[in-house]
Amino acid sequence: MRRTLYTDEHEAFRSMIRDFVAREVKPHFEQWERDNLVPRELYRKLGEIGVMGFDVPEEYGGPGPTSFRYQAVIAEETTRAGVTFSAQSTSTGIVLPYLLRLADEEQKRRWLPGVVAGDVLCVAMTEPGTGSDLAGIRTTAKLSADGTHYVLNGAKTFITAARNATLCIVAARTAPATPEDRRHGLSLFVVPTDSEGFAYGRKLDKIGLRWSDTSELSFTDVEVPVENLLGEQDRGFSYLGQNLPRERLSVAVTAVASAAAAIGFTRDYVRERKVFGKPVAAFQNTRFVLAECAAEVEAAQAMTDKGIELEDRGELTAADAAKLKLFATETAGRVIDKCLQLHGGYGYMLEYPIARLYADTRINRIYAGSSEVMKTIIAKDLGL
Amino acid sequence: MRRTLYTDEHEAFRSMIRDFVAREVKPHFEQWERDNLVPRELYRKLGEIGVMGFDVPEEYGGPGPTSFRYQAVIAEETTRAGVTFSAQSTSTGIVLPYLLRLADEEQKRRWLPGVVAGDVLCVAMTEPGTGSDLAGIRTTAKLSADGTHYVLNGAKTFITAARNATLCIVAARTAPATPEDRRHGLSLFVVPTDSEGFAYGRKLDKIGLRWSDTSELSFTDVEVPVENLLGEQDRGFSYLGQNLPRERLSVAVTAVASAAAAIGFTRDYVRERKVFGKPVAAFQNTRFVLAECAAEVEAAQAMTDKGIELEDRGELTAADAAKLKLFATETAGRVIDKCLQLHGGYGYMLEYPIARLYADTRINRIYAGSSEVMKTIIAKDLGL
Amino acid sequence: MRRTLYTDEHEAFRSMIRDFVAREVKPHFEQWERDNLVPRELYRKLGEIGVMGFDVPEEYGGPGPTSFRYQAVIAEETTRAGVTFSAQSTSTGIVLPYLLRLADEEQKRRWLPGVVAGDVLCVAMTEPGTGSDLAGIRTTAKLSADGTHYVLNGAKTFITAARNATLCIVAARTAPATPEDRRHGLSLFVVPTDSEGFAYGRKLDKIGLRWSDTSELSFTDVEVPVENLLGEQDRGFSYLGQNLPRERLSVAVTAVASAAAAIGFTRDYVRERKVFGKPVAAFQNTRFVLAECAAEVEAAQAMTDKGIELEDRGELTAADAAKLKLFATETAGRVIDKCLQLHGGYGYMLEYPIARLYADTRINRIYAGSSEVMKTIIAKDLGL
Amino acid sequence: MRRTLYTDEHEAFRSMIRDFVAREVKPHFEQWERDNLVPRELYRKLGEIGVMGFDVPEEYGGPGPTSFRYQAVIAEETTRAGVTFSAQSTSTGIVLPYLLRLADEEQKRRWLPGVVAGDVLCVAMTEPGTGSDLAGIRTTAKLSADGTHYVLNGAKTFITAARNATLCIVAARTAPATPEDRRHGLSLFVVPTDSEGFAYGRKLDKIGLRWSDTSELSFTDVEVPVENLLGEQDRGFSYLGQNLPRERLSVAVTAVASAAAAIGFTRDYVRERKVFGKPVAAFQNTRFVLAECAAEVEAAQAMTDKGIELEDRGELTAADAAKLKLFATETAGRVIDKCLQLHGGYGYMLEYPIARLYADTRINRIYAGSSEVMKTIIAKDLGL
Repeated sequence: MRRTLYTDEHEAFRSMIRDFVAREVKPHFEQWERDNLVPRELYRKLGEIGVMGFDVPEEYGGPGPTSFRYQAVIAEETTRAGVTFSAQSTSTGIVLPYLLRLADEEQKRRWLPGVVAGDVLCVAMTEPGTGSDLAGIRTTAKLSADGTHYVLNGAKTFITAARNATLCIVAARTAPATPEDRRHGLSLFVVPTDSEGFAYGRKLDKIGLRWSDTSELSFTDVEVPVENLLGEQDRGFSYLGQNLPRERLSVAVTAVASAAAAIGFTRDYVRERKVFGKPVAAFQNTRFVLAECAAEVEAAQAMTDKGIELEDRGELTAADAAKLKLFATETAGRVIDKCLQLHGGYGYMLEYPIARLYADTRINRIYAGSSEVMKTIIAKDLGL
Repeated sequence: MRRTLYTDEHEAFRSMIRDFVAREVKPHFEQWERDNLVPRELYRKLGEIGVMGFDVPEEYGGPGPTSFRYQAVIAEETTRAGVTFSAQSTSTGIVLPYLLRLADEEQKRRWLPGVVAGDVLCVAMTEPGTGSDLAGIRTTAKLSADGTHYVLNGAKTFITAARNATLCIVAARTAPATPEDRRHGLSLFVVPTDSEGFAYGRKLDKIGLRWSDTSELSFTDVEVPVENLLGEQDRGFSYLGQNLPRERLSVAVTAVASAAAAIGFTRDYVRERKVFGKPVAAFQNTRFVLAECAAEVEAAQAMTDKGIELEDRGELTAADAAKLKLFATETAGRVIDKCLQLHGGYGYMLEYPIARLYADTRINRIYAGSSEVMKTIIAKDLGL
Repeated sequence: MRRTLYTDEHEAFRSMIRDFVAREVKPHFEQWERDNLVPRELYRKLGEIGVMGFDVPEEYGGPGPTSFRYQAVIAEETTRAGVTFSAQSTSTGIVLPYLLRLADEEQKRRWLPGVVAGDVLCVAMTEPGTGSDLAGIRTTAKLSADGTHYVLNGAKTFITAARNATLCIVAARTAPATPEDRRHGLSLFVVPTDSEGFAYGRKLDKIGLRWSDTSELSFTDVEVPVENLLGEQDRGFSYLGQNLPRERLSVAVTAVASAAAAIGFTRDYVRERKVFGKPVAAFQNTRFVLAECAAEVEAAQAMTDKGIELEDRGELTAADAAKLKLFATETAGRVIDKCLQLHGGYGYMLEYPIARLYADTRINRIYAGSSEVMKTIIAKDLGL
Repeated sequence: MRRTLYTDEHEAFRSMIRDFVAREVKPHFEQWERDNLVPRELYRKLGEIGVMGFDVPEEYGGPGPTSFRYQAVIAEETTRAGVTFSAQSTSTGIVLPYLLRLADEEQKRRWLPGVVAGDVLCVAMTEPGTGSDLAGIRTTAKLSADGTHYVLNGAKTFITAARNATLCIVAARTAPATPEDRRHGLSLFVVPTDSEGFAYGRKLDKIGLRWSDTSELSFTDVEVPVENLLGEQDRGFSYLGQNLPRERLSVAVTAVASAAAAIGFTRDYVRERKVFGKPVAAFQNTRFVLAECAAEVEAAQAMTDKGIELEDRGELTAADAAKLKLFATETAGRVIDKCLQLHGGYGYMLEYPIARLYADTRINRIYAGSSEVMKTIIAKDLGL
């Protein structure tokens, strides 16, 4: 169905992104995957084309309020080319909103211009053994005797983009939880990754997302100036999750773009590839499978396009976002699996983009709230 | 997600329909189901509230061009109440467009005012043994020696709403197919159902749709005046299927409304019904299943709402309609099946609306073009 | 895969059943479906061929211990012919075991010969509002002042085969549940259906199983002689469910037979039926769908065949039976749905056996313990 | 359900394998995965415990005819431990049968004792651009002028275990295909991998199976003695695929073992892992999902156990094997996906065995004949 989401302005942006991808990303991406790391200079270049500081007010060098459509265009164009902007999406979509919402005037002046220029941000919540239950965080931040800094000790795991990050938002315990409120006592700190005592642990080996580093971090007596406390002390828990609907919309958009790209890759493949003397596309099974996929992706696209419109109007609810993420990621999972199958043995080889999509997309049903968490949110919204 | 399809005008129409349903349909519907027939007077009353002649120009007593949204409101409100307007949807949505498109001025003056007032229309294509392959039609229409009428002989099957119809559009062969064009030689006739020789055969016993009669028809020397030829002789095949995208959108809308209604019925049921001392709604499985269903229906709703907008703008393509029908009917099938399951044994009893939805919805994946036909259309659109 | 379950003896029995079906059942079955009732004389004839008293000891006129394979053969042969023996399966498979296990010598002498000869048995547990939570039973049985009989009052619903039954096992409350044991106080009675005060309520209209009556029953001061108490008073709850594994195996066997029959019907249909000038069987989609179905049914068959062997050796556990029922009925549901789809519009017409299978099979995932109950049993067995 | 496939003898073998795995494989396996290669000495050790030469006659040092049950035990025990014997299964299950069937007496004496002792065999069929259509092979083997050897030129791809192989069976063209018989002109050669001109190309990077090398091979004027021709010249095509049913059974057995292992890993995980203060196992969704998985795996197990029995009796048909492979691999795909999901983010990390199973199992639906090929075989067997 004809999409009605984008104006000429978005389409001009799309052309620019497409050129950038072709010039700056596509030729190097395989190497970056093998390295398990993207070079930092990519983010400088992304800063130059203005996509590292979405929503940053103009006074700090940013573009001001930014329609979510721009991030959607990036997701579509990178995916179509079989690449990603790696940490760009996490940094601007997940971590930057913390700064925009919680940083005070001085902090904004200090950090935001760098972010706009390409400083990568990461966030460190999860600890070994806690998972999504953040009340269990055991990393501690103790105020020094002279009150000038906090001393951070502890360990984190599953941290995305840490190796490229300049600043890391760390959740740490500044007071014990109380029996009445197990959420009490967490605080957020902005920690420069070159701080003494800030160390990288193992890079975790994953099924996919090989272009992204997922790391363990450890903090050994890391001194964090009190000026780097984000928001109020002990109230960190209340700051978490405020951006989740948008984050989930973002995962949904990526998932739909992946599924649409998968159909495109597969259509090209089956039209060209011959078996038993005729193109794979000539088999009714091929046509039917791709038709099913196309119908499902069309539904997911209609739904996420509507979600983007609601988000831009400030009307996207938590339950909406949960439905979007659940449906889009489950659909993408099914579609990409079927598209891989139509590639035969080639679909299992990582040099084919469908294989990378397959390996990458599996995490979408898990992170930013698993499908099970989404169902819990939706059920509550249904009054169950 | 907040729907943006309807204006205040549509919502006022919705209230009116809701009242009509509560007053004129709901109290009698179970009886009509047992009778396998709706009384003709229902259609007179539907004519009075203005829903039998959608799109009929004002000069013939109709409302003029009508947004598809009105039919969508009817589908939603009747389904929510566990009823239908029976032949209204077939008559106005599927058959009436033939008259609007093909009838000449005189014919329009003759037939349309009656239609607006509640004359039911039916269409008779399928014959025993032909199915969707209409080139195989064997019913014949021979011009009489004096050229005043055609003589119709043959049999039809699977005819919906025939017993309530005043007029029946019949496809018959006026010339043999030619080797170059197996589609040549079909013509369409408007046949009054009280014509001599027009006979009803068996009512077919179906899995569901008990409120609808599905009949065999036979024509034995039925005399049809030449004035009742619709369009040009021998060119009937080219008239068929022009309205199919809209018909398929209509099935999609009904399917989505059914699935949404199923969730509503089930939510009410599981909140009230207790097993082992707690409401069925308290089980995580119940909540998760309904949450999945809600997300899928939300996707189908977003997609059909968009389809309705495109249809009202004249932009709905055949492939769009195929995707809509395929996705919406497959989704409704899955969702209603899961909702029935949550009812336990009660779900199998026809006194519960979920059971009727289950039995009724199965045909949606088949008629107006089966899921397989939809996939063929979509695949072609994908360039496969 | 070649089945190894049956010996020559079973195959001879199969021939006999096949003849019986062709002669005594097939010619009348459509009428019985329309009547919603099978004539009682069918059961006399079934008694004559020895299939009404499986497992009844020889001293009461029965065949003695009977391999479950015989019941499996009946399920296969009736299903393949598109018919059923209606109450035979419930009477011999579900109700008779109560008599065999609980009746004392005198009771056995009184009832079993009649059963062998064709008396139908039914069991009345479920009450309006209780469902599977039998501790909530409110039908009461009060001992008369003179101690000669109990007086039964209450109502039951969802009772299968009641109208053809001679004897009905009724669960009633003889004492209130105690706080320590909510299962205390139930007793089982064998109630002749011609007892005064034993009344049939509505026949319940179902999605399928039209050949079977599902009824409401009411008891108004029904006098039941104390000699008709089955087992010990107040201990009825402990007698329930002892036969459930076998009952579930039986549902599984029927489900597999239905799915296998569906494939057979569909294979015949698609080979004969032509669309667009070639048989439906010539389309790759048709072949692939049937191939998937065949593989799934083969798995279900292997599993149930193994289940039958274990049952005959007394080794079938409750968890085994739960897995069998869950898998077989879910598989049959999917397979029959796909087979119906391949029939196009004919698949929705009850004159085609696939339509009846579709309508009938839906209950299999619900009764004798729903899929959800099966999962609970299996999960417990997994140590969860 | 209690399995009845294995005798005490098989269980003793199982213990031996379990010890071997724990001692010789488990401690090194992660390293081998990182290396993308298993050390050759593993195969020497496997030779010592007698599992490299299944079915090799005693006169050549082998165990003589070997029940397939032994290979099944190996599949079960390695999978349960989260490891594999890498090329052992390909070498003994897929390639060795060519030697056993086609080698002449002299060749057997020359090669089989080495195989029994641990020489790995590989087979090179697929070429870039041909896939499963082997008639398109373009590698050539030309007889030398003096008739003492063939000269091999060409390239192969997707070759499993080539880097560890001592001998490689290569399919090459010795004559052009004829118009009447496009299968004419292929021959099979046993080529020592240390032959001059035999070169390894790229190792292909795959979604999973990281413990296995999948390579490109090239032949540049490789001289192969005429004594190394396997079977008759030009008749190679007819030798291919004779072992396919057994190969597919083998894939099915591995798939079922993987799915069963996945359930085991997940059960352990969900019982130990806590979220929101309670074990994941305490959620009904967790229990229901694992219960569904357990029922499906039980079906697949029953089916493959039966398949193994038939294979050992020489009764496994091609259609049987196709159903087994289709059902087992599709089931394993679904089950392992669900089990991964229950692990949350950990499921995506390759240090967890479920992640490796997920990445590995995807190929099972493709190799040894894809699910689509299996359906084609089954459909033909159904008479479609």
